[in-house]
Amino acid sequence: MNEFDLIARYFNQPALTGQPGCDGGVVVGIGDDCAVVSVPDGWQLVQSIDTLVEGVHFPAGIDPVLLGWRALAVSVSDLAAMGARPHSFFLALTLPKADTAWLEGFCQGMADLAARCGIPLVGGDTTRGSLTVSLHVQGIVAAGSALRRNGARPGDTVYVSGTLGDAGGALPLVLQGASIEDGKSTSETALLTRYYRPEPRLALGQWLVEQGATAAIDISDGLLGDLNHILRASGCGATLNSDALPLSDALRVVYPEDQARSLAQTAGDDYELCFTAPASAIAESESPIPVVAIGTIVEQSGIRLDGQLIDLAEGGFRHFS
Amino acid sequence: MNEFDLIARYFNQPALTGQPGCDGGVVVGIGDDCAVVSVPDGWQLVQSIDTLVEGVHFPAGIDPVLLGWRALAVSVSDLAAMGARPHSFFLALTLPKADTAWLEGFCQGMADLAARCGIPLVGGDTTRGSLTVSLHVQGIVAAGSALRRNGARPGDTVYVSGTLGDAGGALPLVLQGASIEDGKSTSETALLTRYYRPEPRLALGQWLVEQGATAAIDISDGLLGDLNHILRASGCGATLNSDALPLSDALRVVYPEDQARSLAQTAGDDYELCFTAPASAIAESESPIPVVAIGTIVEQSGIRLDGQLIDLAEGGFRHFS
Repeated sequence: MNEFDLIARYFNQPALTGQPGCDGGVVVGIGDDCAVVSVPDGWQLVQSIDTLVEGVHFPAGIDPVLLGWRALAVSVSDLAAMGARPHSFFLALTLPKADTAWLEGFCQGMADLAARCGIPLVGGDTTRGSLTVSLHVQGIVAAGSALRRNGARPGDTVYVSGTLGDAGGALPLVLQGASIEDGKSTSETALLTRYYRPEPRLALGQWLVEQGATAAIDISDGLLGDLNHILRASGCGATLNSDALPLSDALRVVYPEDQARSLAQTAGDDYELCFTAPASAIAESESPIPVVAIGTIVEQSGIRLDGQLIDLAEGGFRHFS
Repeated sequence: MNEFDLIARYFNQPALTGQPGCDGGVVVGIGDDCAVVSVPDGWQLVQSIDTLVEGVHFPAGIDPVLLGWRALAVSVSDLAAMGARPHSFFLALTLPKADTAWLEGFCQGMADLAARCGIPLVGGDTTRGSLTVSLHVQGIVAAGSALRRNGARPGDTVYVSGTLGDAGGALPLVLQGASIEDGKSTSETALLTRYYRPEPRLALGQWLVEQGATAAIDISDGLLGDLNHILRASGCGATLNSDALPLSDALRVVYPEDQARSLAQTAGDDYELCFTAPASAIAESESPIPVVAIGTIVEQSGIRLDGQLIDLAEGGFRHFS
């Protein structure tokens, strides 16, 4: 047995493989040529693959506990955006050497998020090379009910969940190597927590399917850029009211008002949901997490913020480096 | 639109996304937060993730056409080993820069294999970093019929398909940077082709399910090591007859007899299937590709080759570097 077989054992532990997933959906887990999974009759599988590269999507030297959580959370967020229930996931991990302490931390962070979402690890591959984490996640939806990007219609209201800009507000600290405990105030710590420990909005996504939301996306690259994906797929535009964008107290404490608003518009990594629905469909007080109306879908293409047409080439895209 | 969005467009082409897969199984392909797939009632999904790292699993500077084929073939081979019909696949590609000629070659090689297997690309992620190819592949099997590793029983016959050791025989040339056309004889070219263009044994795997094979694995790390995975999972051992191992004419021409036999026993990368079945179940003349009996499953653990107990720590495992 070589060192990478040993690493594989790290992942074949009940904290990761023993999560319930969708009941009875895992027929064969880790240990054969393939995993075997089942999907209930009348349901469909919703699937996504995401790669995080050291120095591009997360800082070199990141606490492995935080990386394990964040990598899985970012992937599961795609399931939330489709309104899916988590089913199971695969991990392809490339790392320079077998570092026991690092692996223990990484597995712990990943297991914490897996337990929170009830999603089991069912397969993977471990290889030697530059630190790279690829995750394939899957969930289930009743056939035909997945929340797509292409269903927004003029007259729909545009909503977002939670607060925006917090993770982006943490980025200057992250780039300096700060971990969560390096926050110099409760506000900084709150922002750093948003960056390092995003929470996939699974309950919201599933609730939106029931309410008849017309389109949804998770905000990974910034509100304006991600909303634009919905608009292009749906063939329409939007008018937004900047005063309506939800800002956290922490963001307002750490940043002047104008910078806080700018972060809320264009910074990514918050993994809140942006979605559209007829206003009559969404009883905001009944949502599993706070949601707020920020604008309206219109026929004319583009995004108008407080009446001004936004140049999307200018903002909306941002990566770690 | 940044350069990596452009790359994503390379993969959203009909040669890759337009393969038939399992009819009607792809509900939503590339372009949303997730793909949506369906599985016919009474069937299960068989899934695997594999990563290939430059310099570890393939030589730096490899012809991208060959890499595209080989990467997908190696992954689909896991589906063959489970007896599955191909459904669809995901690509997570990390590469140092957007090199158009390289991407065209890579897509062409991958599309050639995708067309051969009828497996469509349904999603992916493209990131910047060291060249790394992760593939998630999935196929379908009638519920409960997947070929596992753990079903071998004493008295079963051990079989292999095709010929063994050919890809391993090409390895010294591969390590010198040889591509297929660098073979100095038809025999060398034949061995290099086996290394660079493996053929997933899909038809054989599906036939084995129908015949009632008891266990199967694809030979990626070498016959003895991979058979040992079946034996450990099944709690039994095997006796093998080295004269029965199928050697190609090409391997016999390039290598002396004893080296050729050694390669057939321990070299990997052939992606033939090793499987077990009651001898009465397998009519060798009716197999979609040649298969041959090489031994018998016994109660006593371990592998005995011509009566000699094999030390598996010594051979059976080999990687590119």
